[in-house]
Amino acid sequence: MSEPKLLLEAFKETNYQVSGHGKRDIQVLKNALQKVDDKQEGDIYGNGSLIEEFQTKMAKYLGKEKAVFFPSGTMAQQIALRIWCDEKGLKKVAYHPLCHLEIHEEDGLKELHHIQSVLLADKDRLIELADVLNMYEEVACILLELPQREIGGQLPDYETIEKISTYCRDKGIRLHLDGARLFEILPYYEKTAAEICSLFDSVYVSFYKGIGGVAGAILAGDKAFTDESKIWKRRHGGDLISLYPYILSANYYFDENEQKMNQFYQDALELAAFFNSCETVSTIPLIPVSNMFHVHFQASREQVEPILAELYAETSIGLTGYLKEVTQKSCCFEVNVGNQYAILSKEKLKQVFQLLDEKLRKSQV
Amino acid sequence: MSEPKLLLEAFKETNYQVSGHGKRDIQVLKNALQKVDDKQEGDIYGNGSLIEEFQTKMAKYLGKEKAVFFPSGTMAQQIALRIWCDEKGLKKVAYHPLCHLEIHEEDGLKELHHIQSVLLADKDRLIELADVLNMYEEVACILLELPQREIGGQLPDYETIEKISTYCRDKGIRLHLDGARLFEILPYYEKTAAEICSLFDSVYVSFYKGIGGVAGAILAGDKAFTDESKIWKRRHGGDLISLYPYILSANYYFDENEQKMNQFYQDALELAAFFNSCETVSTIPLIPVSNMFHVHFQASREQVEPILAELYAETSIGLTGYLKEVTQKSCCFEVNVGNQYAILSKEKLKQVFQLLDEKLRKSQV
Repeated sequence: MSEPKLLLEAFKETNYQVSGHGKRDIQVLKNALQKVDDKQEGDIYGNGSLIEEFQTKMAKYLGKEKAVFFPSGTMAQQIALRIWCDEKGLKKVAYHPLCHLEIHEEDGLKELHHIQSVLLADKDRLIELADVLNMYEEVACILLELPQREIGGQLPDYETIEKISTYCRDKGIRLHLDGARLFEILPYYEKTAAEICSLFDSVYVSFYKGIGGVAGAILAGDKAFTDESKIWKRRHGGDLISLYPYILSANYYFDENEQKMNQFYQDALELAAFFNSCETVSTIPLIPVSNMFHVHFQASREQVEPILAELYAETSIGLTGYLKEVTQKSCCFEVNVGNQYAILSKEKLKQVFQLLDEKLRKSQV
Repeated sequence: MSEPKLLLEAFKETNYQVSGHGKRDIQVLKNALQKVDDKQEGDIYGNGSLIEEFQTKMAKYLGKEKAVFFPSGTMAQQIALRIWCDEKGLKKVAYHPLCHLEIHEEDGLKELHHIQSVLLADKDRLIELADVLNMYEEVACILLELPQREIGGQLPDYETIEKISTYCRDKGIRLHLDGARLFEILPYYEKTAAEICSLFDSVYVSFYKGIGGVAGAILAGDKAFTDESKIWKRRHGGDLISLYPYILSANYYFDENEQKMNQFYQDALELAAFFNSCETVSTIPLIPVSNMFHVHFQASREQVEPILAELYAETSIGLTGYLKEVTQKSCCFEVNVGNQYAILSKEKLKQVFQLLDEKLRKSQV
């Protein structure tokens, strides 16, 4: 029987988890505030040194003229696309079928901005240059998500992005980067954030994924673009009197974790190999290109759940708190490697995967 | 000469300010977190005990079935009006000409929701029953703001609200309460929040005005309404992974300051009388009905600014950091009485106003 709660409970009771930065508890915020002067003034409606200095820092890091702090990526990206559509007088954009805006935002882009989407590529593969060249409709903007999260965090060749960028500039199509996990892909491409962002007209980055902050996002581009984004930020209800709890935590964890992205990537390579060592388990991508990947089981969710729960109880190491059904005979979950992985004993981890492999084999008899 | 910076600087250098709760610095957040268990789990996309318990507490306080926490009132109110417009299939609402949605939100209601506004009353007076009865257009919803902030925080008779409520129910018009300062008006009406809210279909309250939190809002109504508001919250980009910095501070300062609203109101009565004791100064309302009022000078901003700056330097008591030009011969500013007022010596304050009166008289010679 399917007992999703059982798996989550068993996961929560483990002493170690292979994914992430640890629990999202209040300590995360408290740590970020600890060394901040009590008398530091908060930001007021987008103004004040606290928000302005962080925006300047991120604009420089991303190699863009200006950057604006937003409460969420959902808000930042709808606004970016709206600005590019208004510029061209064409309410049409193109992106991957599993783009965040298409599947996770209750159709905000359509319901609030009346922008139509053109879906590039099939949903189980990356957007390639040919998809852009063969696009049958005119659009104001193309959004590329690097890495493509919903298919395990895959990445195109860097040359593909360069060619798409050149094509878009030639054709007067704006190129927007969904860089929710931009920090996480720098080690694989061996590029700076600014180098990658130079291929795009606008870019959004997030501070609660690899960075590990509380929430919040940055939208960057040229000054005309960011000035307009501030007007839309107010319209959306995102121009809060104070955003400093998110800004301070974004800044704190950026300083702490941005430099660890190569470690997270190397750890993801190792962890994915552990998963792939089990006969009926495989990762997508097979060899990760960032700190993330998806783990697929050739067995139903109902079969795998009790096996994992048992494994957690025996080893006190948690692999995932949930499983998503793919077909009736397969299921998957997502891994994002963070600070937790380094805490684990690799010897212990090896045993965990041997045990997992045994249990999975046994269940197939 | 006009030197707005001079006034603000002089204000910031005073030891005491007659308005507000004190500086909006990081201490405000730190105080709210101090007694929260580090291991307390944060909210995740609107779920978790932290957000759910606060929503339940506020629903009960407001006498509504359900309540939803929002990052901002701008977002909450646009969404409330959108839901009522969709329900009726009519994108038209009525409110005061100086409604927050009309003048402070970059036309988000129109630009994002394509909702037209019908302006009730003249901008320098309250909406009365006759304005509603004589409304020439059909609308889906009427928004009442209690108190009407932009005209000094005036309030209609309670009977007027009751009559408007009855009329709206009879005519199938939804009534929404902009309760940004709802807590602040309870002492004047001698009603509970739930009693006032019972006259409305939906209500928004704010946590960083009289309450003194960091940011955040609650939208309350029946379950069908709040369920739909959550979908729109996601569309707006307001369904953050974690809103707990705002929720924890809202809860902390609600517990601390909600009970002090009568004190703030009494203090506002006293402070307004001090202002009115100066010959060329008057408050709107003349006798406050909440913790807020506007102070009007019968002199230009250019005349009053140096007088105030001088007064601050001599007394170290600050009355305002800005002046707004009303006409070429008059200017005004807003007062919101909070915790700062109780700290002040009333004897000292009396001297400050005697000195102000002298300085203003002298400048008119």
